[in-house]
Amino acid sequence: MARKIRVVQFGCGPIGCSIVRLAARKPGFEIVGAIDLVNVGRDLGEVAALHRDIGVKISPNADAVLKETKPDIVLHATGSSLPTIYPQLEQIARAGASVVSSTEELSYPFRKHPELAARIDRLAKENKVAILGTGVNPGFLMDTWPLAMTAVCQDVRHVKVVRIQDASPRRLPFQKKIGAGRTIEEFNKLVAEGTLRHVGLAESIAMIAAGLGWTLDDITETIEPVIAAEEVRSSYITVRPGQAAGVKQVGHGWRKGEEMINLDFQAYIGARESYDAVYITGVPNMEVVIKGGTHGDIATAAMIVNAVPRVLAAPPGLTTMKDLPLVCALPGA
Amino acid sequence: MARKIRVVQFGCGPIGCSIVRLAARKPGFEIVGAIDLVNVGRDLGEVAALHRDIGVKISPNADAVLKETKPDIVLHATGSSLPTIYPQLEQIARAGASVVSSTEELSYPFRKHPELAARIDRLAKENKVAILGTGVNPGFLMDTWPLAMTAVCQDVRHVKVVRIQDASPRRLPFQKKIGAGRTIEEFNKLVAEGTLRHVGLAESIAMIAAGLGWTLDDITETIEPVIAAEEVRSSYITVRPGQAAGVKQVGHGWRKGEEMINLDFQAYIGARESYDAVYITGVPNMEVVIKGGTHGDIATAAMIVNAVPRVLAAPPGLTTMKDLPLVCALPGA
Repeated sequence: MARKIRVVQFGCGPIGCSIVRLAARKPGFEIVGAIDLVNVGRDLGEVAALHRDIGVKISPNADAVLKETKPDIVLHATGSSLPTIYPQLEQIARAGASVVSSTEELSYPFRKHPELAARIDRLAKENKVAILGTGVNPGFLMDTWPLAMTAVCQDVRHVKVVRIQDASPRRLPFQKKIGAGRTIEEFNKLVAEGTLRHVGLAESIAMIAAGLGWTLDDITETIEPVIAAEEVRSSYITVRPGQAAGVKQVGHGWRKGEEMINLDFQAYIGARESYDAVYITGVPNMEVVIKGGTHGDIATAAMIVNAVPRVLAAPPGLTTMKDLPLVCALPGA
Repeated sequence: MARKIRVVQFGCGPIGCSIVRLAARKPGFEIVGAIDLVNVGRDLGEVAALHRDIGVKISPNADAVLKETKPDIVLHATGSSLPTIYPQLEQIARAGASVVSSTEELSYPFRKHPELAARIDRLAKENKVAILGTGVNPGFLMDTWPLAMTAVCQDVRHVKVVRIQDASPRRLPFQKKIGAGRTIEEFNKLVAEGTLRHVGLAESIAMIAAGLGWTLDDITETIEPVIAAEEVRSSYITVRPGQAAGVKQVGHGWRKGEEMINLDFQAYIGARESYDAVYITGVPNMEVVIKGGTHGDIATAAMIVNAVPRVLAAPPGLTTMKDLPLVCALPGA
């Protein structure tokens, strides 16, 4: 039988823990270390609600964990901003481990952070590891999935992706993050501060354009509240009429003044129906719908774990979802 | 500017001609040769209805064309049966050209033709070329697409794909091929003779299973007529009540007596709605629908042409859609 893949979890917050819960029950994986600044000394199995200890204590000392455990791969979930997490990638790569990261800005970093992207690619090549940023969005719904659908198109003139999420069944932090229950003034203040914002639309637009061989002149984004017309509520939050029920954020990719890509992300309490949809204008036109939408937390953990064998088999360097062979669900226990 | 990709078209029937029409307007391609046993000596542009000559005459002599034109890649569309077309693959590979073929049995040949698959892989490696079989089905709708959707799943327990095609707007040969307007007796005779049969379900099932890491014990198929309850008609054929309006062919993938994969292919005159759908049972369940379905002829040419850059960049050997990086629509003129 093949040797198990040695995995270190870097970042043991909600996303990290959902990754751990999945990785722990995939037969080919062995979790050998855990890095975080909180819950230090506690067993990862307990922190991740596995309801059993797994003999892996959370440590704040990344270098020591990487040196002692010699992982094949690090599953990384500590933040959205690439400049912020870059030193962690450096630690991991220098320890000789590949990376699958949930860092949104890493999913397609060549446009927003071209120098950092080049540096990460060099870092990975020097250390003979592969580095991937992925997740459900960015990583699948608004980039890999629409690109995959264009395979049957003779021509593509415009790509639109819509993701409508009813936020009611989601975690409270998610509902707060999208501004549900805020006044419009408060909502706009959060937007201005940069705290109310989905990160990834620009990365997805850049990846779609690269996949289709399009050179874009500009990528723009708008954020506005979805305003409740009547009272709507989740188990946590009541939104009064005129308040923000959530967010509508739209990204546009432009070429010569023409919109080529439109990514429409909406998450709010009271959405009648959750769904994801791809609309391709071309030969032929296509309309593809995921009925009921895609559960963000489940799907992000799935993407990270399912990508592991592809990343381990990839040539050294910074890689992206469009450059890897098909990522598929891994077999269960 | 990069040198153009030198393309030879091998097989200039309806599918071959639709490939040529697409390849002829993709900027990176140069069509340098054409091979077929019919329309010999005629210009490929005329035969493929490009409404202009392209200076490429159809020749029956494959070896001579390949030797004279030195193509980078051959777009191959001569038949469904792998043993039948194998000598052509050998000619092409020995001439040092890679292949994208519409041969259904080549899309995932490891189960039905394991020895031939190994031989093709050796042939390709010896000649440093890559060989791919693809198309819309097999090649995308019932294998690559459902596999791609499993990326966001933590577990998959069953995969079902349904393709319903209203045959009315399709070409007459297609309507005849699916048995429209036949009596049930005639239909069953055509099935028994092996002439009325969609080739590819077994290949798609084998590819899905391989992608998901499943070992199947058996793959079975059933073919039956879709019987017209009332009179239905296309511009070519009138189907009387009780006659076959078309075909329903279902493939099943079995593991330990349990159905794991179900591919349900239906093409008939009078289908209320054309659509393609993927149903995944797992964590989470997924239902994904291509509204209006996917036009077979357009999509097959698209798959063949769009796969070219990926095949040229692939390592030598027999490759499959699940092993290639994402195939996307190529930019237009």
